[in-house]
Amino acid sequence: MLRMGHRIGRDKRITTHVALTSMALGASGVFMSGDEDGRVMDSVRRARDRWAPGFSVEYSPSWREVLGRARSMGCAIAHLTMYGVELQFLLDGIRSLVPSRGLLVVVGAEKVPRDVYALADLNVAVTHLPHSEVAALAIFLHDVIGPRGRISDGPRPVLPQLRGKLSLPRGPSPGPSGSPP
Amino acid sequence: MLRMGHRIGRDKRITTHVALTSMALGASGVFMSGDEDGRVMDSVRRARDRWAPGFSVEYSPSWREVLGRARSMGCAIAHLTMYGVELQFLLDGIRSLVPSRGLLVVVGAEKVPRDVYALADLNVAVTHLPHSEVAALAIFLHDVIGPRGRISDGPRPVLPQLRGKLSLPRGPSPGPSGSPP
Repeated sequence: MLRMGHRIGRDKRITTHVALTSMALGASGVFMSGDEDGRVMDSVRRARDRWAPGFSVEYSPSWREVLGRARSMGCAIAHLTMYGVELQFLLDGIRSLVPSRGLLVVVGAEKVPRDVYALADLNVAVTHLPHSEVAALAIFLHDVIGPRGRISDGPRPVLPQLRGKLSLPRGPSPGPSGSPP
Repeated sequence: MLRMGHRIGRDKRITTHVALTSMALGASGVFMSGDEDGRVMDSVRRARDRWAPGFSVEYSPSWREVLGRARSMGCAIAHLTMYGVELQFLLDGIRSLVPSRGLLVVVGAEKVPRDVYALADLNVAVTHLPHSEVAALAIFLHDVIGPRGRISDGPRPVLPQLRGKLSLPRGPSPGPSGSPP
């Protein structure tokens, strides 16, 4: 997925949420464009190293270059925008695009250049109200990929509980000799 | 829904996205607790006044008070957390709770007090990875309420388009006399 138009300071947390959401919900990687923001890249890479080593995290100064590269690889390009066609009407088609051609999902920050609307194969709306690129991306990935594509291991072992919170100890890591202490 | 633990400055945009996402995806209102943040409240209320006049926007200094009020009204309380039970396993039950009892959905900011886990009826996970409260809330509301519960009117008329961006003029507002100019 491509997060474009990042602004240092202002977008720090939203861009981080966009990247972590992509990772948790099964995207294969994230490109960021706009301002180059080492702190955001570092924090996303730390999460990646821990939980999803296969997830790529790249910066590109030019969103056009990322779109061009996706195009040349045969990927379809879906831009999430309230001006697009509702996801529910496109879902079956998009699901079949992913394995056959691959898909680059694009979310912008405040103001998206008009060219993006024309360069995308699909402008996809998750409601026609302005709300949140994190929310739109989450619903898109959830509906298109579903729970199957997700990585299952969290930062620590979780015993899912309806009430209360139980921290589990990490399983004992086998010592070098394997002998009991 | 209840957004707890808001911190002025740091959480400004995430809290705004949480509130706008709730509104766009069919929640009936939002309570905010933590720091009182007039600018966030004002911006959410402006959006509310324009697109969803029935959506309530309230501040409470105490999340306990909001939980207690919900409890006394008979509402079920669902807290979104990676330590909970996966949404997919609870979905049917939650869907039936909404019309029968009402539901308060709780999302925290960085660190959620342990009591919240015990006071909630349901701790609900959208993956067991840390990603984004905006993403978790969006998927929860999308799966529980679906497109039917959403408001359909955006800030301006949209002609949904697969490619390109077309701004529509607002329809002519009928003049006081109704006569042509």
